[in-house]
Amino acid sequence: MSTGFFGDVTKIKYEGPDSTNPLAFRHYNPDEVVMGKRLEDHLRFAVAYWHSFAWTGTDPFGGDTFQRPWFPADTMELAKQKADVAFEMFSALGVPFYCFHDQDVRPEGANFAENTRNLEEIVDYLAAKQEATGVKLLWGTANLFSNRRYMAGAATNPDPEVFAFAAATVKTCIDATHKLGGANYVLWGGREGYETLLNTDLKREDAQLGRFLNLVVEYKHKIGFDGTILIEPKPQEPTKHQYDYDVATVYGFLKRHGLENEVKVNIEQGHATLAGHSFEHEIELAQALGIFGSIDMNRNDYQSGWDTDQFPNNGPEVALAYYAILKGGGFTTGGTNFDAKLRRQSLDPEDLLYAHIGGMDTCARGLKAAAKMLEDGILTSFVEERYKGWEQAGAKAMLGGERSLEQIAQWVEESDINPEPRSGRQEYLENVVNRYV
Amino acid sequence: MSTGFFGDVTKIKYEGPDSTNPLAFRHYNPDEVVMGKRLEDHLRFAVAYWHSFAWTGTDPFGGDTFQRPWFPADTMELAKQKADVAFEMFSALGVPFYCFHDQDVRPEGANFAENTRNLEEIVDYLAAKQEATGVKLLWGTANLFSNRRYMAGAATNPDPEVFAFAAATVKTCIDATHKLGGANYVLWGGREGYETLLNTDLKREDAQLGRFLNLVVEYKHKIGFDGTILIEPKPQEPTKHQYDYDVATVYGFLKRHGLENEVKVNIEQGHATLAGHSFEHEIELAQALGIFGSIDMNRNDYQSGWDTDQFPNNGPEVALAYYAILKGGGFTTGGTNFDAKLRRQSLDPEDLLYAHIGGMDTCARGLKAAAKMLEDGILTSFVEERYKGWEQAGAKAMLGGERSLEQIAQWVEESDINPEPRSGRQEYLENVVNRYV
Amino acid sequence: MSTGFFGDVTKIKYEGPDSTNPLAFRHYNPDEVVMGKRLEDHLRFAVAYWHSFAWTGTDPFGGDTFQRPWFPADTMELAKQKADVAFEMFSALGVPFYCFHDQDVRPEGANFAENTRNLEEIVDYLAAKQEATGVKLLWGTANLFSNRRYMAGAATNPDPEVFAFAAATVKTCIDATHKLGGANYVLWGGREGYETLLNTDLKREDAQLGRFLNLVVEYKHKIGFDGTILIEPKPQEPTKHQYDYDVATVYGFLKRHGLENEVKVNIEQGHATLAGHSFEHEIELAQALGIFGSIDMNRNDYQSGWDTDQFPNNGPEVALAYYAILKGGGFTTGGTNFDAKLRRQSLDPEDLLYAHIGGMDTCARGLKAAAKMLEDGILTSFVEERYKGWEQAGAKAMLGGERSLEQIAQWVEESDINPEPRSGRQEYLENVVNRYV
Amino acid sequence: MSTGFFGDVTKIKYEGPDSTNPLAFRHYNPDEVVMGKRLEDHLRFAVAYWHSFAWTGTDPFGGDTFQRPWFPADTMELAKQKADVAFEMFSALGVPFYCFHDQDVRPEGANFAENTRNLEEIVDYLAAKQEATGVKLLWGTANLFSNRRYMAGAATNPDPEVFAFAAATVKTCIDATHKLGGANYVLWGGREGYETLLNTDLKREDAQLGRFLNLVVEYKHKIGFDGTILIEPKPQEPTKHQYDYDVATVYGFLKRHGLENEVKVNIEQGHATLAGHSFEHEIELAQALGIFGSIDMNRNDYQSGWDTDQFPNNGPEVALAYYAILKGGGFTTGGTNFDAKLRRQSLDPEDLLYAHIGGMDTCARGLKAAAKMLEDGILTSFVEERYKGWEQAGAKAMLGGERSLEQIAQWVEESDINPEPRSGRQEYLENVVNRYV
Repeated sequence: MSTGFFGDVTKIKYEGPDSTNPLAFRHYNPDEVVMGKRLEDHLRFAVAYWHSFAWTGTDPFGGDTFQRPWFPADTMELAKQKADVAFEMFSALGVPFYCFHDQDVRPEGANFAENTRNLEEIVDYLAAKQEATGVKLLWGTANLFSNRRYMAGAATNPDPEVFAFAAATVKTCIDATHKLGGANYVLWGGREGYETLLNTDLKREDAQLGRFLNLVVEYKHKIGFDGTILIEPKPQEPTKHQYDYDVATVYGFLKRHGLENEVKVNIEQGHATLAGHSFEHEIELAQALGIFGSIDMNRNDYQSGWDTDQFPNNGPEVALAYYAILKGGGFTTGGTNFDAKLRRQSLDPEDLLYAHIGGMDTCARGLKAAAKMLEDGILTSFVEERYKGWEQAGAKAMLGGERSLEQIAQWVEESDINPEPRSGRQEYLENVVNRYV
Repeated sequence: MSTGFFGDVTKIKYEGPDSTNPLAFRHYNPDEVVMGKRLEDHLRFAVAYWHSFAWTGTDPFGGDTFQRPWFPADTMELAKQKADVAFEMFSALGVPFYCFHDQDVRPEGANFAENTRNLEEIVDYLAAKQEATGVKLLWGTANLFSNRRYMAGAATNPDPEVFAFAAATVKTCIDATHKLGGANYVLWGGREGYETLLNTDLKREDAQLGRFLNLVVEYKHKIGFDGTILIEPKPQEPTKHQYDYDVATVYGFLKRHGLENEVKVNIEQGHATLAGHSFEHEIELAQALGIFGSIDMNRNDYQSGWDTDQFPNNGPEVALAYYAILKGGGFTTGGTNFDAKLRRQSLDPEDLLYAHIGGMDTCARGLKAAAKMLEDGILTSFVEERYKGWEQAGAKAMLGGERSLEQIAQWVEESDINPEPRSGRQEYLENVVNRYV
Repeated sequence: MSTGFFGDVTKIKYEGPDSTNPLAFRHYNPDEVVMGKRLEDHLRFAVAYWHSFAWTGTDPFGGDTFQRPWFPADTMELAKQKADVAFEMFSALGVPFYCFHDQDVRPEGANFAENTRNLEEIVDYLAAKQEATGVKLLWGTANLFSNRRYMAGAATNPDPEVFAFAAATVKTCIDATHKLGGANYVLWGGREGYETLLNTDLKREDAQLGRFLNLVVEYKHKIGFDGTILIEPKPQEPTKHQYDYDVATVYGFLKRHGLENEVKVNIEQGHATLAGHSFEHEIELAQALGIFGSIDMNRNDYQSGWDTDQFPNNGPEVALAYYAILKGGGFTTGGTNFDAKLRRQSLDPEDLLYAHIGGMDTCARGLKAAAKMLEDGILTSFVEERYKGWEQAGAKAMLGGERSLEQIAQWVEESDINPEPRSGRQEYLENVVNRYV
Repeated sequence: MSTGFFGDVTKIKYEGPDSTNPLAFRHYNPDEVVMGKRLEDHLRFAVAYWHSFAWTGTDPFGGDTFQRPWFPADTMELAKQKADVAFEMFSALGVPFYCFHDQDVRPEGANFAENTRNLEEIVDYLAAKQEATGVKLLWGTANLFSNRRYMAGAATNPDPEVFAFAAATVKTCIDATHKLGGANYVLWGGREGYETLLNTDLKREDAQLGRFLNLVVEYKHKIGFDGTILIEPKPQEPTKHQYDYDVATVYGFLKRHGLENEVKVNIEQGHATLAGHSFEHEIELAQALGIFGSIDMNRNDYQSGWDTDQFPNNGPEVALAYYAILKGGGFTTGGTNFDAKLRRQSLDPEDLLYAHIGGMDTCARGLKAAAKMLEDGILTSFVEERYKGWEQAGAKAMLGGERSLEQIAQWVEESDINPEPRSGRQEYLENVVNRYV
């Protein structure tokens, strides 16, 4: 039964590259097989509840622009109406997954107990919707950043009661995620950072954050939740300095607290670029460090200095991200979550559809190009060839720790080693990529 | 005996805040005692050989502007003339330390052997200059980034011969530093990074870099060099992505390769801001992680997107950096190295003096303000007070791992914990700082 | 009669640099005479109504943190309560001026007529407060960016009805400003820009904006408002590209529409740096172009990429801004408006006082340093000396258009002109500045 | 007769999209007709002499990496060898144009007279090469930024002799360009800016720059050069603040000096983004202001803060640039100059070919996509429709100046105008673009 919100739209179909139907896919055919796997199973698309169903169109200089029938969603009835529309869109788009924060799906209560009751009630409702539609939960998470109680941090708050409130809330959200069969549980520390060092004890807050994450991991094992725990790095915004700055920083944090085998990362394109990295850098680094988990797909405006969370639309860029993912073996529990929001002038229900269709098509096109690049192997062969000197015995010994600095120096001097540089062929390789995108 | 380069300038004197003599200190009185220690011993100033005596004033759009009598310094004789002028300036400024790369002090040879011979010869000359003047070596380092052989990395080069050449060079530079009684040895990986992921194997290069650093540490112990090994983080420039991105990244790298107790960091103001951090952030983070070593003092232009390496001149900013340093216990083997260069229009010998005098005065003023802030204790008391809730038994138990997530959740629910936020007082604290700077 | 909001705080007093009273001025003594003028008359401080009395502490990731008794200020009664507190703070601080948008001071109505009635009623109330306290209006302005009707622009909206609504609103705001004796009227085009060129006609929108501004100027003259019309440049935020990007852009716009003698600029520190300029650059450029009007004093976090609107606290930076202002003759109708907001964690009424006291002290200290720099004349003499070659007859002729390119070339060739560069002395000049700040 | 530099490469051919030959075009078929014009005539490709034949691979942290047989090109013989290779490459690529600075093509002389003689000699040589190959000159320019005499500016130097030297040099370069039949003459003010306001008189330097440009325009008319005079905007680098910041700033400058009908702009992609604008913004703005001339095609790394001058490789981005160009009527005297350089690790002659082939293909593909977008008209129709309210009589009257502010306000009030916002459809439009790229 349709909510009517999207008019008479039912299921968005794949019509091929030549279609000019704005409500059809041109590249995303879920059943197309690429490298032995269906596109749907490669991409594992998820819709983010918050941007599409909870955000009202505000920005720091303006109020609401969207007028949804379920706003302000402060009753259980409105929350259910919101869920109805959400699942209607998930089904229309044919995405296999969705993601949510507790605050996206339930009315805000007056205290912890009321929040918990509200969450439990809506979880039952969502479970039924999942059952009815076949849509699954990629991950759940707790919003530990919007309420004023968290303004100075959740786990890293100077007030231990806030730590406790946050921990209790995470417990309920892991329970909800577990009940809904979520494939992962995410932590984004929206207020785990500081505004000024003048009132902050960095070291103490690190210890708090380490303990908090250990609590989560211990609880996961206790209840038998077998999804992956994911941390989502972000360098700044909302706080001046966010502790989970980027993949490398999160790795050091995990290692420091003995969690590098327990927790992985959910990497967002826009967060990568805010931290000064390309998206593919963060993906490849996480893979190299053994902590790659999932991605938040979006894009930031390159001329703006904040997290603009736009839908991806640049095919060549997206192709490089999926090339990195496929090269590392693809997703396991993770997937492609559209952590992207409409521009605030895109007022209409159909704008939600256009945005996701465009994003899904861009990703499908990118993944297919990436798969072809990988199968053809021109790039990987080039890289192997470039390092092949390291396969020689002497080089291996040097890297394996069998040569001391003096021995190496002696060898260089005696053999008059004087290496000649070789072209890195960057432009050639970029041209190769352009054959595919 | 004067070289005449600086005319009749001899020793720069402290004349007090009211002096208008551009060749006098207004704030830096080396013998002034602050927090029980002489200013000279707090600040441990060093001059960087490269910017002041080797750089010719080029930039990416223009050639040499400086015309020094020792340029192009491609003979041993010119190298010695350069050293004469350098030590004359060190003495005139009264700095206790200097720092150098091998390439700054010796002529470039045709191969490793010639480089080594040149280095050994100049090291003897420098040793004599140190002896004669009392100026000491804060740290030595190897330039592993300027020569074209390093264009694709030194330790992280795809060619193992380049790794070997770099390792051999570092051996000679540690030897030189050891012989000259250096307090530290620094590694800045100017080409340890990549230009494009398309030709790069991140994981392999990490292994190479880890091995390289272990070689250095093993050698240090073998020869009994008791200076500190320091890595200097930088996020980008010259490569698109530098592996030693920032303090947090270096920490993760050290931890991964078992070196977190062997190696510390040399933090540069300009590198901190290029990585999106304040200088004091990087200092406090390094202290929290136990890897704070030394600083490169300079500043970047806030409207430019690259490393401008200007002399520090903003007192309040510098005061916050020294506040962090003093709060953490001050320098041990580290010091304040001016990794700063003249603007390329500052052609004259006296510009070198003005720049260093201004920088030293700015630092002295900053350190004195920082010491006063620390002694008065208003800021530290505020921070302690802010976190004092964590001293309660229940909070301690929670942080100490004696409470599970369920127990915390139960407590929050049963006690209806609903914490009320308290003001972070940022503006008040900033006003407090302004009483001192 | 006190509202009680600020407790028993009455008038903030000047207690001199050694005061540790956080509710006293250390540098701002309004009656201190500098360069023949009282500090109050130099600085012409104004408080911004919006940040201090209308903003609730939200940011893009969190809701309200402030809880003021007059929120949500949607009735005339609450609006008056807000005004009572505002004027109490103006008086406590001793600022001679305030500034407002219509939306800050009146409840939002259902349509234009109701907005107008609300504005007229509150204007009478404000007039009485002005009369009672002696506080004056530095400028009024219309909020043409927060309401959803303006989401695609006010003057530059594709819908002429929005243009009309905006124009009508500006009329009422100029009337209000005129009635309240405002010294200036400001236009900040918060939505005069675009999100994507794909739906935008740049040229048409420029024509709309030009017409709009001409309407304002014509009306000003018609009603005899003799305040200055000011445009406030900003490069981005909220729109991807704001048309009034920076001072140079606004100048070109004014010139194109024949308004360069009618309209000046209100320059904000944070907007300057977002556009890639220093604050003093924008001030000096506006002076050189004859369009300098007023300033919005604040600062942005140098590690954040958006407009953080913090209170100024860096003395040396502020001194350079006032040095530029004084060098250009100081303010006429303009002044120093604190377009700065508390950090959202600064919850308490006293935080409002601390913030403004700190800002006023920073400005007073900066202005006094700037005045001393100007009176001593070392910097201005240096600049004059540097260009003095242009006073020679030949140089004057060349600049005056009396020499053709061939004549100049002939002179260069025949006289073998081969100029030798001279030091720009940047470090020396920076040291000179540091004698004053 | 081949120089042998590129081995046996002769003419690069178009082989179609499926070609895997790295030395063939996949998209650029010069004779393909698009919108009634050959691709070659649309794109008007030019190679930049400086990056490809004069740059040695240096960067601020490293020396030469390239080893070309004509380096250091300090004799006329070597300069001619360089020209031979350059024209060989122009011919191999089939580009119709090239561009140069005087310093790129001639040895540097000891003074103005020698520079002039060297230039005249090489111009004759270049003229013969042009004649022999059919390659033409898109524009010539003078390098007024590399020599140390220009370190503090050319036209804006405090020393009038430098102004004169620069003016004389420009005369010789216009003469050279005129003689070689150049279609345009470009001025990029590499040192027309400042490093610090402390030693700068902004207003005076603006007057100098205005006079300088008028000298150029007067001379152009005098000698009958009918090419276009172009200014190339850039916001920073090498100076802290470049006067020709962006298109809007240059427009204001031209207008101020009465030159807006005499001079146009040469817009570089990388300079646009350094100034905070998209490339298409700068193009569309220049068109709206009537000063669009030519483009420098390249790209900057989005994670680096300086001008990386890479070859374009992102098809969708390039398509938007050509869409703007075609929408505005295409090039007249301007063209597409590759102001792009190899990465310094791309050592080999073939890298030069790969880079240009990739760039030309990217541009060809972008232009063809843009032409299709324009011909289909979906985007342009959308924009027209969006603004169509302005065609109503009342709206026209309002925009035409026939309504006063009071009249508009009266209308809004009496008719209770209360406009409802309409979706801006950004995501839909981005999807439309993705049908073409």
